[in-house]
Amino acid sequence: MTDLKRSWVESANSAETQFPLNNLPYGVFSTEGGSPRCGTAIGDQILDLAALEEAGVLSFAGTLKTGSWNAFMALGKPEWDRLRAELTTLLAEGSDAEATLSAHLVAQSDATLHMPFSVTEYTDFYAARHHAFNVGSMFRDPENALPPNWLHIPIGYNGRASSVVVSGTPVIRPNGQTKAPTEEAPKFGPSQRFDIELEMGAIVGTPSNGPITVSEAFDAIFGYVLMNDWSARDIQAWEYQPLGPFQSKATATTISPWIVTAAALEPFRTTGPEREKPLLDYLFEPKPMIYDIDLEVTLAPEGKDETVIIRSNYNNMYYSAAQQLAHHTSSGCPMRVGDMLGSGTISGPEKGSRGSLLEMSWGGKEPLTLDTGETRSFVEDGDTLTLKGAAHGDGYKIGFGECVGKVLPARPVTN
Amino acid sequence: MTDLKRSWVESANSAETQFPLNNLPYGVFSTEGGSPRCGTAIGDQILDLAALEEAGVLSFAGTLKTGSWNAFMALGKPEWDRLRAELTTLLAEGSDAEATLSAHLVAQSDATLHMPFSVTEYTDFYAARHHAFNVGSMFRDPENALPPNWLHIPIGYNGRASSVVVSGTPVIRPNGQTKAPTEEAPKFGPSQRFDIELEMGAIVGTPSNGPITVSEAFDAIFGYVLMNDWSARDIQAWEYQPLGPFQSKATATTISPWIVTAAALEPFRTTGPEREKPLLDYLFEPKPMIYDIDLEVTLAPEGKDETVIIRSNYNNMYYSAAQQLAHHTSSGCPMRVGDMLGSGTISGPEKGSRGSLLEMSWGGKEPLTLDTGETRSFVEDGDTLTLKGAAHGDGYKIGFGECVGKVLPARPVTN
Repeated sequence: MTDLKRSWVESANSAETQFPLNNLPYGVFSTEGGSPRCGTAIGDQILDLAALEEAGVLSFAGTLKTGSWNAFMALGKPEWDRLRAELTTLLAEGSDAEATLSAHLVAQSDATLHMPFSVTEYTDFYAARHHAFNVGSMFRDPENALPPNWLHIPIGYNGRASSVVVSGTPVIRPNGQTKAPTEEAPKFGPSQRFDIELEMGAIVGTPSNGPITVSEAFDAIFGYVLMNDWSARDIQAWEYQPLGPFQSKATATTISPWIVTAAALEPFRTTGPEREKPLLDYLFEPKPMIYDIDLEVTLAPEGKDETVIIRSNYNNMYYSAAQQLAHHTSSGCPMRVGDMLGSGTISGPEKGSRGSLLEMSWGGKEPLTLDTGETRSFVEDGDTLTLKGAAHGDGYKIGFGECVGKVLPARPVTN
Repeated sequence: MTDLKRSWVESANSAETQFPLNNLPYGVFSTEGGSPRCGTAIGDQILDLAALEEAGVLSFAGTLKTGSWNAFMALGKPEWDRLRAELTTLLAEGSDAEATLSAHLVAQSDATLHMPFSVTEYTDFYAARHHAFNVGSMFRDPENALPPNWLHIPIGYNGRASSVVVSGTPVIRPNGQTKAPTEEAPKFGPSQRFDIELEMGAIVGTPSNGPITVSEAFDAIFGYVLMNDWSARDIQAWEYQPLGPFQSKATATTISPWIVTAAALEPFRTTGPEREKPLLDYLFEPKPMIYDIDLEVTLAPEGKDETVIIRSNYNNMYYSAAQQLAHHTSSGCPMRVGDMLGSGTISGPEKGSRGSLLEMSWGGKEPLTLDTGETRSFVEDGDTLTLKGAAHGDGYKIGFGECVGKVLPARPVTN
């Protein structure tokens, strides 16, 4: 574990900040009247990288002046490494760049954060053993909860990139077809079992046009975001056989505004749960590729205080993002810059570490009691759900900002 | 049914051409040394629309000079209608534009065809009753072959846009995980049951950001392409539970080079199979929205003549593309210009009209005999598969060009 790297931005040296010099996450921000531009968070500030490229302090083919990190990602890993190295030097305590850079710091409190990248395509996986077991128990057969392929394949399905939104975007409760087992025919209306999924998203920065190895996949991942994959369980239960989740997962997926780079997370690599069956060669992981990141979810009813409802860790993943990406390419499927791979719901072994309300309330049978005294089986209108994540170093932590969504009532049903 | 519209391009007046003046399909082509540009097929020629916009004969905000139809689609339906009207006038027999336009005709035999549009996201449906029944019988339970939701929901799943390729692109047989029921553990290697799916793709030309009605969806569809959704059945059988097809469908999806517009297909609207259960209101179709399009598939072994192996019709669809699109938006899922909706495999009631080899050979139990005397259960290396489609008017037909793919051997397995 490396120590805190000290910066001349004093707020970046606090043990409380999510954004010490060790982090340098990438986002897109704007200030009043300005256009969205690339920046990095440092302490309670944002360093305006577009302005630095404009001023000639940084030189990355103009990519930092765009309102998205896609063009920068397309420059390739050596350039990713160069930017991180240059920023680390420029922002370090004692750097002689302080005078120049100070003019390009914007207080985070004065900035609006936008989608940090354009999601090219979005894939969601199913990679935490406890989540797969829990959901299998409820949706299918408790005796055979884990699907037979699960210990062999990083099971995934394609999601809907157009529905990915940045933290802070309101989420409108979806309408959809549902049918309870006791009902004769389906009905159409607001989902009654609207849920969250605590996930991480891995962002592909290096394209490929054929199968790649797990090692190549690891190097192709630019960084990670927090991800809440909103899920309408009642729509899901009725629609998902035989072709998988579709409209139940297409309302919104909220991501954190900051991309934490793989480079920043490198000191936090760790192994996941014990492997129960040997994997096929193409999924061989030459080193641990999962990260030790504490995750939590809070729920705040309209106008009330938040309660921490879930505490989990990214190390509950049975498959790493690198394994998922390698599997994703195994058929020859081309991957492009800006593709996002959702980890799948990150549930741990304890009840309090289950990554969805479906699991926390065991399908609604055991409602949670919030600190406010209210209970929840699923998300209610007006609820604000917030995901947080932090990798803990020695005297510092690395965070993603918050991944927030407030649920608004469903639209009226019209035809 | 309208009659043939005669053109001064003589080859467009033949009863045999796929591209009479009634059609005017949109594609992207290049000639030696030139860059890809927008064109329309007329008889055995391509009219260079980029050159016409350059010359000021057409004026569509420069969109025809791009190498894709996406920018033009984004102009909106009134502009779609205006281009079609202007081209119909310019190319009509007796038009005084003949002298000007003749210089901008390129023989199709001299042109290379490219992807006609950039696929933003790709969704595939499951909308022919006979296909759903056949596959359900083989993959699941013959007694309950049709999933309980099937008569209520246009079942779909998200596919992989990056894998969509234009006609003529070779298709490399995928490797993947498979496990026969008799095997203890899965293995990784070339798919032994590589298959085709005869489909049509509907292209979204008008974006939406919330639920739309079936009528709005009908108007949002810019046009249609032929589509072959290559499918690895052995990979699919092992991976698809519980989240649906993934790598089995991610190798390639081949589309025709020409987009036939909804306007050109308007005279061919028809009803599909009888509805067995009433649909929920949000799927109400105020007029018939399926098209009468004859479809066929041929298979040619390496260096040998082709055999017609499948004859079907787009009117086998239980759900129209408009209903699929309306359903797709029901959860609030945003749709964007260039989204493509695959119809699902278009199987009819007769054996010869089943839209996949899986169905034609009944899972390999009843291999087809080709005209060459060879047999096929699934696709073999070196086979060329070709989809064709035509809507038949009075003395003319409207086609899509050919949708061709040749299968190459799998890549060596490496790690």
